Amino acid sequence: MTNVQDLLADAVGSANAVPGADASPDYSRDESLTCTPQTPAFVVRPGCTAEVAAVLRVAGREGIPVTARGSGTSLAGAAIARPDGILVSFERMNAILEIDEANQVAVVQPGVTLTELDAATAAHGLIYPVHPGEMGATVGGNLATNAGGMQAVKYGVTRHNVLGLEAVLATGEVIRAGGRFVKNSTGYDLTQLIAGSEGTLALVTQLILRLRPRLPHQAVVLAPFADAHELTLAVPRLLATGIDPVVLEYVDALTMAALAHAEDMASAVHESAQAYLIVELESRTAERLAEDVVEVAEFLAAQGAADVYPLDRATGRRLLRARERALHTSKAAGANDLLDTVVPRAAMPDFLAEVQRLAADTGSYVIGCGHAGDGNVHLSVFQPDPETRQQLMTSVLRAGIAAGGSISGEHGIGVDKRVYFDALEDPLRTDLMRRIKHAFDPAGILNPGVLFEPAGAMR
Amino acid sequence: MTNVQDLLADAVGSANAVPGADASPDYSRDESLTCTPQTPAFVVRPGCTAEVAAVLRVAGREGIPVTARGSGTSLAGAAIARPDGILVSFERMNAILEIDEANQVAVVQPGVTLTELDAATAAHGLIYPVHPGEMGATVGGNLATNAGGMQAVKYGVTRHNVLGLEAVLATGEVIRAGGRFVKNSTGYDLTQLIAGSEGTLALVTQLILRLRPRLPHQAVVLAPFADAHELTLAVPRLLATGIDPVVLEYVDALTMAALAHAEDMASAVHESAQAYLIVELESRTAERLAEDVVEVAEFLAAQGAADVYPLDRATGRRLLRARERALHTSKAAGANDLLDTVVPRAAMPDFLAEVQRLAADTGSYVIGCGHAGDGNVHLSVFQPDPETRQQLMTSVLRAGIAAGGSISGEHGIGVDKRVYFDALEDPLRTDLMRRIKHAFDPAGILNPGVLFEPAGAMR
Ligand SMILES: Cc1cc2nc3c(=O)[nH]c(=O)nc-3n(C[C@H](O)[C@H](O)[C@H](O)COP(=O)(O)OP(=O)(O)OC[C@H]3O[C@@H](n4cnc5c(N)ncnc54)[C@H](O)[C@@H]3O)c2cc1C
Ligand SMILES: Cc1cc2nc3c(=O)[nH]c(=O)nc-3n(C[C@H](O)[C@H](O)[C@H](O)COP(=O)(O)OP(=O)(O)OC[C@H]3O[C@@H](n4cnc5c(N)ncnc54)[C@H](O)[C@@H]3O)c2cc1C
Repeated sequence: MTNVQDLLADAVGSANAVPGADASPDYSRDESLTCTPQTPAFVVRPGCTAEVAAVLRVAGREGIPVTARGSGTSLAGAAIARPDGILVSFERMNAILEIDEANQVAVVQPGVTLTELDAATAAHGLIYPVHPGEMGATVGGNLATNAGGMQAVKYGVTRHNVLGLEAVLATGEVIRAGGRFVKNSTGYDLTQLIAGSEGTLALVTQLILRLRPRLPHQAVVLAPFADAHELTLAVPRLLATGIDPVVLEYVDALTMAALAHAEDMASAVHESAQAYLIVELESRTAERLAEDVVEVAEFLAAQGAADVYPLDRATGRRLLRARERALHTSKAAGANDLLDTVVPRAAMPDFLAEVQRLAADTGSYVIGCGHAGDGNVHLSVFQPDPETRQQLMTSVLRAGIAAGGSISGEHGIGVDKRVYFDALEDPLRTDLMRRIKHAFDPAGILNPGVLFEPAGAMR
Repeated sequence: MTNVQDLLADAVGSANAVPGADASPDYSRDESLTCTPQTPAFVVRPGCTAEVAAVLRVAGREGIPVTARGSGTSLAGAAIARPDGILVSFERMNAILEIDEANQVAVVQPGVTLTELDAATAAHGLIYPVHPGEMGATVGGNLATNAGGMQAVKYGVTRHNVLGLEAVLATGEVIRAGGRFVKNSTGYDLTQLIAGSEGTLALVTQLILRLRPRLPHQAVVLAPFADAHELTLAVPRLLATGIDPVVLEYVDALTMAALAHAEDMASAVHESAQAYLIVELESRTAERLAEDVVEVAEFLAAQGAADVYPLDRATGRRLLRARERALHTSKAAGANDLLDTVVPRAAMPDFLAEVQRLAADTGSYVIGCGHAGDGNVHLSVFQPDPETRQQLMTSVLRAGIAAGGSISGEHGIGVDKRVYFDALEDPLRTDLMRRIKHAFDPAGILNPGVLFEPAGAMR
């Protein structure tokens, strides 16, 4: 043990390599609802790419598992290191290296948080449009989970907004892929392969992110619907108009009641509504925005909305922020687990009905909200019995897959959802993924236990 | 030989498995300027996924190379099979299985051409917005080359518009990845890995493509510039306004003269212009389009355009179609080879100047046009001596890479550009790609010679 400690201190400096037992308990957990915190053997905080490479060379030589960590806001237990492992925290690699206006890209280190990036890009009239619910998350964590969030309906998810990266392989070798351009047909796309790989293929040490012009005018429209079915039917029709909303969120009645209570926004609750649609619009000019708001309001009324409220800027913002915190609200209310399954958006009405049937059958509560524009359904599962819960969640995910969907839309599999990944994912596909994993990391030192059962399985 | 012929006839029916010598000479070539046509040992035309799998099982057992073919419009020699190989033509798998309006996706077989898809989507008020210069190309070929084209500046390239696929592995196993949704964080993204892999990882048998609302109003603005430098400086500034053009093309004076001559559009040529910018705009309403045209025209004039011509619909269309045929025009003029290197778009001015220096140094002509919005520079190289040409092209590509670019933006490496890929691509990256290739295709039967030197190299 002492020996490894010395080697890691050589790699990153002794102040930045400590035994896990001496580090803050924060390093032992993430935001997963079900993973038990676990103290890693070592916590290291590299300050540059060369130090990350040095850490990986030590880990490779000694066969020690390595888990990367951004802000530890993973909802899947993917940022919890193993008790015999090294946690590599990217907190010191948090420089915004360049905001390149002419190419509309940001070149950043992985430990930059979304809040920091948002402030830096705003100063240039640009925006990095991927906004998952947690702006304290890092761009490295976002890349590794392929984070999505509310604006994906217009701007796509992390995958669609990362143009290139630098990463350290399990061997300690440093690769670069992509660049300050959107087009590339020069061999396999390593950037896209590493995106969403949850720290199991490489540690990312630099990112090139695509920026967009920051449009000056936004407005929010809130539309309560008497039933969820009608709401979900209206979504594809709204998108077909070409209006291109930046946010298109669905919130069910229970979730809205909880949000309104937590945020003191009683006026947002509509008596007869079973479900709410929140639409954010943006535009280059105030005139066009005003026209679009009217058009959307009329459109939703015609689609059966019980009411339509164009919100003033402050109220609109508060509502969206409250929606972002829905997860915390659920947690506070005692939710036992979460799902973020994705289905084709037109399948949402039937899928949500099926979820309620499955919940009722098992005496559980399942409440939800979701990124309606992209069929990404976030469900909070209230069922204290672990076995019944796992059964219910398996049935829900199976129903989602049967509807043409996939287990996780944006949170990832991590350790948490591996039981479902094992049970439900096509084994031909997981076998191929295992072979890809092996091509990158033959010794299996990168985040073992995430996605796949670790080789000499401990858990 | 007879034996393999029988096995292939069993796999796809005897009418659809013929010796290459008995097949049309079309199957022996693609649109590459430098690859020698090569007659494959066998041409097979499977009618469904199961038949593709059966062909691959035969090939795997017998160790025979397999090359997929769409319409054979590859510019990189990637669709030319080896003389001992099987050419798998997807011409019979050309069904549009579904235009799913609610999810805004098309589910198609790989042999569907862009022209066919465009007609089918138009009937639903939708569009598949990836338009490489050759609309006779198939979506399978597009996927495999990660084709781009003129509208990538707004809509991205094939990679950004393919949501899922079905593919047959070298073993004959059939995998499915992705689905009718834009978000997915469930393991590695196999769709993105297969996109751009030029038939070296798997044969694609079905695609799920993202569609968009087909906006009803388009207009084209043509702006001649006295010098290319000023034009390329104006491009990032125009994009910063947030106007979001659908096309942003650069054409140099020689190319424009050739186009105008070929298309009988003398009026498009401006006496003092060194370079032309073509901007296409689109909108939901005629009013907004008219406003945007005025804004773009004023903006370009302020940026130093020698003149600005808003074109009527018919002339605009003709000009864009002529631009799409620039390649044929170059070929007809006797171009010896082509490059489609990509650089950060702000690097275009210096890069283009460097290209002209390198051309002059070697007594060559290099003329060009390009997707200015995304830094994708198409160069026609006029230099009959193969050695001098290869030297020049190596220098040009090296300059592009030094400017932060990459060898191919959209045409791919194929067989044609492998010499540059070998010489200029970071070996750490190509080693990793080789290991990925091995994870998919350990026997190396899929398109050997493309990207990598074939194992028991024949060429
Ligand atoms: C309140 C709340 C709301 C949320 N809302 C959303 C939402 O709307 N959409 C959404 O997509 N997600 C959401 N999330 C989850 C989201 O995925 C994470 O917040 C974020 O993407 C993780 O960033 P992080 O820096 O905290 O990463 P961590 O939690 O530290 O790590 C996440 C994963 O990334 C890996 N990783 C981190 N850095 C690197 C690196 N440099 N190289 C390689 N691997 C690395 C880790 O090993 C781990 O596998 C939410 C989370 C919370 C708590
Ligand atoms: C005039 C002209 C203009 C062009 N302009 C552009 C442009 O602007 N932008 C651009 O990106 N490209 C352009 N191209 C090249 C473009 O890449 C191709 O036209 C197109 O993408 C290839 O489609 P195809 O069906 O002809 O494929 P092919 O040429 O038949 O094959 C191309 C590659 O795809 C593979 N492939 C084909 N089908 C499958 C399948 N089902 N599964 C796996 N692999 C498969 C082949 O093995 C080969 O590697 C142009 C070409 C021409 C001739």
